[in-house]
Amino acid sequence: MEAKNLWRFLVLSIGVVLVLLVTRLPNKEALDCNLYSGWCTSKNRFYSSAHPNNPIKKPSSFSTYHHNQHHDESEIPEHPLDPLTIQEFNKVRTILSNHPLFKSSSTYTLNSVVLEEPDKKLVLKWKKGDPPLPRKASVVAYVKGDSHVLTVDLETGQVASHKTTGSVSGYPTMTMEDMVGVLEVPLKSTEFNRSITKRGVNLADLACLPISSGWYGTPVEENRRLIKVQCYSKEGTVNFYMKPIEGVTALVDMDRKEVLAISDNGQNIPVANGINTDYRYSIQKLNGELRLLNPISLEQPKGPSFTIEGHLVKWANWEFHLRPDPRAGTIISQAKVRDPDTSKLRSVMYKGFTSELFVPYMDPTEGWYFKTYMDAGEYGFGLQAMPLDPLNDCPRNAYYMDGVFASSDGTPYLQPNMICIFESYAGDIAWRHAECPITDLKVTEVRPKVTLVVRMAAAVANYDYIVDWEFQTDGLIRAKVGLSGILMVKGTTNENMDQVPNQEYLYGTLLSENIIGVIHDHFITYYLDMDVDGSDNSFVKVNIKKQETSRGESPRKSYLKAVKKVAKTEKDAQIRLQLYEPSEFHVVNPLKKTRVGNPVGYKLVPGATAASLLDPEDPPQKRAAFTNNQLWVTPYNKSEQWAGGLFVYQSKGDDTLQVWSNRDRPIENKDIVLWYTIGFHHIPCQEDYPIMPTVSSSFDLKPANFFERNPILGVPPNFEDDLPVCKARDSA
Amino acid sequence: MEAKNLWRFLVLSIGVVLVLLVTRLPNKEALDCNLYSGWCTSKNRFYSSAHPNNPIKKPSSFSTYHHNQHHDESEIPEHPLDPLTIQEFNKVRTILSNHPLFKSSSTYTLNSVVLEEPDKKLVLKWKKGDPPLPRKASVVAYVKGDSHVLTVDLETGQVASHKTTGSVSGYPTMTMEDMVGVLEVPLKSTEFNRSITKRGVNLADLACLPISSGWYGTPVEENRRLIKVQCYSKEGTVNFYMKPIEGVTALVDMDRKEVLAISDNGQNIPVANGINTDYRYSIQKLNGELRLLNPISLEQPKGPSFTIEGHLVKWANWEFHLRPDPRAGTIISQAKVRDPDTSKLRSVMYKGFTSELFVPYMDPTEGWYFKTYMDAGEYGFGLQAMPLDPLNDCPRNAYYMDGVFASSDGTPYLQPNMICIFESYAGDIAWRHAECPITDLKVTEVRPKVTLVVRMAAAVANYDYIVDWEFQTDGLIRAKVGLSGILMVKGTTNENMDQVPNQEYLYGTLLSENIIGVIHDHFITYYLDMDVDGSDNSFVKVNIKKQETSRGESPRKSYLKAVKKVAKTEKDAQIRLQLYEPSEFHVVNPLKKTRVGNPVGYKLVPGATAASLLDPEDPPQKRAAFTNNQLWVTPYNKSEQWAGGLFVYQSKGDDTLQVWSNRDRPIENKDIVLWYTIGFHHIPCQEDYPIMPTVSSSFDLKPANFFERNPILGVPPNFEDDLPVCKARDSA
Repeated sequence: MEAKNLWRFLVLSIGVVLVLLVTRLPNKEALDCNLYSGWCTSKNRFYSSAHPNNPIKKPSSFSTYHHNQHHDESEIPEHPLDPLTIQEFNKVRTILSNHPLFKSSSTYTLNSVVLEEPDKKLVLKWKKGDPPLPRKASVVAYVKGDSHVLTVDLETGQVASHKTTGSVSGYPTMTMEDMVGVLEVPLKSTEFNRSITKRGVNLADLACLPISSGWYGTPVEENRRLIKVQCYSKEGTVNFYMKPIEGVTALVDMDRKEVLAISDNGQNIPVANGINTDYRYSIQKLNGELRLLNPISLEQPKGPSFTIEGHLVKWANWEFHLRPDPRAGTIISQAKVRDPDTSKLRSVMYKGFTSELFVPYMDPTEGWYFKTYMDAGEYGFGLQAMPLDPLNDCPRNAYYMDGVFASSDGTPYLQPNMICIFESYAGDIAWRHAECPITDLKVTEVRPKVTLVVRMAAAVANYDYIVDWEFQTDGLIRAKVGLSGILMVKGTTNENMDQVPNQEYLYGTLLSENIIGVIHDHFITYYLDMDVDGSDNSFVKVNIKKQETSRGESPRKSYLKAVKKVAKTEKDAQIRLQLYEPSEFHVVNPLKKTRVGNPVGYKLVPGATAASLLDPEDPPQKRAAFTNNQLWVTPYNKSEQWAGGLFVYQSKGDDTLQVWSNRDRPIENKDIVLWYTIGFHHIPCQEDYPIMPTVSSSFDLKPANFFERNPILGVPPNFEDDLPVCKARDSA
Repeated sequence: MEAKNLWRFLVLSIGVVLVLLVTRLPNKEALDCNLYSGWCTSKNRFYSSAHPNNPIKKPSSFSTYHHNQHHDESEIPEHPLDPLTIQEFNKVRTILSNHPLFKSSSTYTLNSVVLEEPDKKLVLKWKKGDPPLPRKASVVAYVKGDSHVLTVDLETGQVASHKTTGSVSGYPTMTMEDMVGVLEVPLKSTEFNRSITKRGVNLADLACLPISSGWYGTPVEENRRLIKVQCYSKEGTVNFYMKPIEGVTALVDMDRKEVLAISDNGQNIPVANGINTDYRYSIQKLNGELRLLNPISLEQPKGPSFTIEGHLVKWANWEFHLRPDPRAGTIISQAKVRDPDTSKLRSVMYKGFTSELFVPYMDPTEGWYFKTYMDAGEYGFGLQAMPLDPLNDCPRNAYYMDGVFASSDGTPYLQPNMICIFESYAGDIAWRHAECPITDLKVTEVRPKVTLVVRMAAAVANYDYIVDWEFQTDGLIRAKVGLSGILMVKGTTNENMDQVPNQEYLYGTLLSENIIGVIHDHFITYYLDMDVDGSDNSFVKVNIKKQETSRGESPRKSYLKAVKKVAKTEKDAQIRLQLYEPSEFHVVNPLKKTRVGNPVGYKLVPGATAASLLDPEDPPQKRAAFTNNQLWVTPYNKSEQWAGGLFVYQSKGDDTLQVWSNRDRPIENKDIVLWYTIGFHHIPCQEDYPIMPTVSSSFDLKPANFFERNPILGVPPNFEDDLPVCKARDSA
């Protein structure tokens, strides 16, 4: 081959390689997958091939629960709150395709297609056997720069209502297509590619993330959807998060798919080597696995104690409706508990779900200041809920429920094994007493505690949120969030703390050579439409106050007194927790009393938590103003469901819970909604590297004079004869 | 029968009946039992007869753990911290019987006989195989009104040291004989008996409690041990606590066994009827049991993952020494975790235990103001730890450990099944990540969370404390307290809240007709001698502070900054928690660094808690001044172990953690002890009646840059083949 031909061959080869690289990321298969599922995955059930040793097998007694069978059954909605079926999704598409808005536009996206819940009053009246309530879909569409909210009537085949957003700021939740579509945009920029290759990263090793850009009041942010793209190297590890290409950020117009700006600083920061960051078992096995434990399993020889009819879960003394939602993740509706005295189901909560999240990173520098995620409204908390890993995400005795969501053109797709439901027994005690025989009473009575867990795990890029609703037979509901997954880390030139001058602040912890775990917060705000024995409730703050005794009243100087204050309006119920000004937070039904005359109620019991300390006028905090208090109470309003507003993406904070609550509407003896925020401050530590052990927090909804007495007085203890006979498989 | 004879017969009969009643309560059998065990019980193993359907049977694979076998083995101490053996207790008795103090006195009590721990330095140096360290016993004796502390050298057979209390106030922990001995004293008083019978209570139905009287600075309290006796009616229920004879209190001299005063008010308050308060399963079965659940069980087909050699527990990557203690209950010593990088055990905590409890009731009136219990120092938290109920207090896969304690004359007795140890799996997740396939990485990796629980349940009269130490493979230790048992309630004339005038305050909640659940607090203060990679540690408060950005620095106005402050002296570490001034609390080894230069450390992570709000000058609060802060750090001092002082009974608060800490000694780079208090405010509700569902709280000791990275990266997931094959017994 002569020199010229060799030269041509080389140029051609490099060209081919470059084309391959660009098309490979994301390649067709990934894109297809992304088109039809969360951050893609589930349709192809890739998780089963990811665990060749761990096939999804359920005990034969569970076969009736298998999701495919279940799914066939659910094609016709059985309950007014059942999610849209595949047929209904397709009908919505047909109806919309005839609507002028979509006919006239060749480019539109459906950002959300979900059930439009029937009016609460109708749902409350509806009983099994009644004719089905009219089915409607709520659609959020983005057409030529405008957001539209449409209600599609599936009975009449018409668009029943159609609104545009008006003066409210912000954009709808991104679609999967939005998120994936922007990733290749920076690669069109030679400047961007040069920044990457200058750092020694092969473009074939790039892994990029779409990072919501927040809102900071600059002109560039007006009238367009922005996103920032930052990239990592996946060379040598699947844990590319530990190999950031620090300082390179592309600002992208999401709709025009155009790079608006590239910032490239920190060129001297090396990409970390990523050694020993791969967390896959297949790799660990090669390195020598750490087998610490013999197997342990939750076993139920007589099967589970729950039934699931469509989306209605019945367990022990509980009944509730459960549905997957692309934005909230898991929605619990009409939770009712059976009163042992009357054998009747009594209402506790009409609706409960994670309304919004706020995850601000604590680094104000160029590449980091905008990282102030609102995972539900920006990314879709349910969209990111990957299929659960049987035997590991949930115990062997779990049942799995699928989600059915719409892609951006309205085509439905399956999110398999998105939620699991299982009974849990950790060896704990529901109640006990051992009597001392002074009185000749030989009594030791103990009852084991068994609970029902409803679990979803949403992996919003690096972080994994494990969202549990746990029901106890004593009437308690625990809402718990576990944080695991992978840290968002920052590249640094430092390899050891002894290189860091005293006055330098790293914004986090040096986790490994060239890697800083940046400090951040997590807030998860719950919507809790409590209906305690009916819809009209009051919120009562029971202050626990020191009372000084008067002279001669008592040998004691002080005691604590419970002072009840009924909240009249919303501002009475904007609450910040204080250890030294403690209160209980009751939702009571003022018109229903127990036999001895206490108003029936439930109380919200906070767990360990953290508050947002950001400046209230800081743009991220204004947008996430729902974290300004830990607890709020609003009057029920069907349109107030999303604590950061319906349109959170690039919102300016003009439609938050704070704004609604400041209207200070009456809330006494009304249908009221509680809002509670779980918070975490996270200063990373080396144990969080390269993957984080789960950290959890929770709060409880607990009966407080709801029952006449302990509702599980009559439950039996465990007896040896009820417990299973088990063998190891290899000895069976 | 003529009238005179009839009269004689009646008088005689009444006399006989009265004699029988008085001797019956407590009768011989009960007294014997009380002499040799907790609030009596265990020696006779009455719990097995209380559950005829629930015999204590363990799977055959557990037979090596059976406590009798175990007990035979442990007659020779294997570790310097092993508790005194039966032989050693008997030797102590012999040695003391030759000591002048006891020779000269016919009446003395041994309030405490426990191991005198060898010097920490010697224990730290000791290795298995080394010659045993000299064995000593620490004895607290009460002789003729004086308290004595003696050290008995079991090698030399001598009393090695002997101190009296000097100017320090208070008396030793009551013995079981003290508690039981005072109960019959009021019955000698016709005034007392008249008060009881006037309320229509048959003396045969009396059940009385010995209630520590606190200290209030009155002359009657000087130079004598006082106790108050209040009684209940056990007519028709074993749950006599729900039938208080309100307003009758006998003040008794504990040593002279003499009634000093009887108060009798509230004669118009009826004894509640107690209907449906009996919580025994045998009774519930008659009333129609509430069978909500199919059986569920924790199964380990290949046996547990721990071994117990004497008192040394080895599980997964943990090793620790575990011993029962009559005052603290459970003592964890020398907790060490194995570093996966070096395979070496590394020290975390030298000693941890519940040092003291404080339970003030919030009613300043005559019959209630003194109820301000300090359960460890007054009653003996371990003495009150009744045998655990297998299958219900602990799951089927539990191992049980006995306690051996001394009765008041020094005779040893067995407290069987006092502590259980088991592996727990609730279906939770140790760590997880699901990757999105944007990057073509098909990854879902999840590891189940299994923990080791060490449990004790102390029933201090009505209340049951479930005290757990939970170890996680990721290095975390969780200390958890569950509260169950029965409320201490107050009689009232009210049967319904509509009878209660608006201005009247009940000091609690009307739970049922004539029954008020009185508001109270619970505080449990832990002693935590942290030895993070060695004894010399520093306490670092990591403040999380809002930092405003300067003009032009960032589009952000604020972010959170971690500001580390090393505590120089004790007062730097007297900490009250604040949601809006958050901190992390690290114990670091300033001389040991990770590879990238972070000091190795553990952090204490508070859970939900409550603070004492009582007036600091209120006598109960002065005595329980250790609850003035949630967190304290003191330099290690062998004599400072009991947060309320060695002699808590009737103490004046002159020997508390507050007093020690106010000396403000240096604590930087020293052997330091952390003290943390878990608190609960308890406003009772009807669900707590007639027996309380468990309420729990906890705190964590969590590695923070202790390991180079996540120490359980290499553990395998669950595989179906590892899980057992199980059948229901009746189908097996």
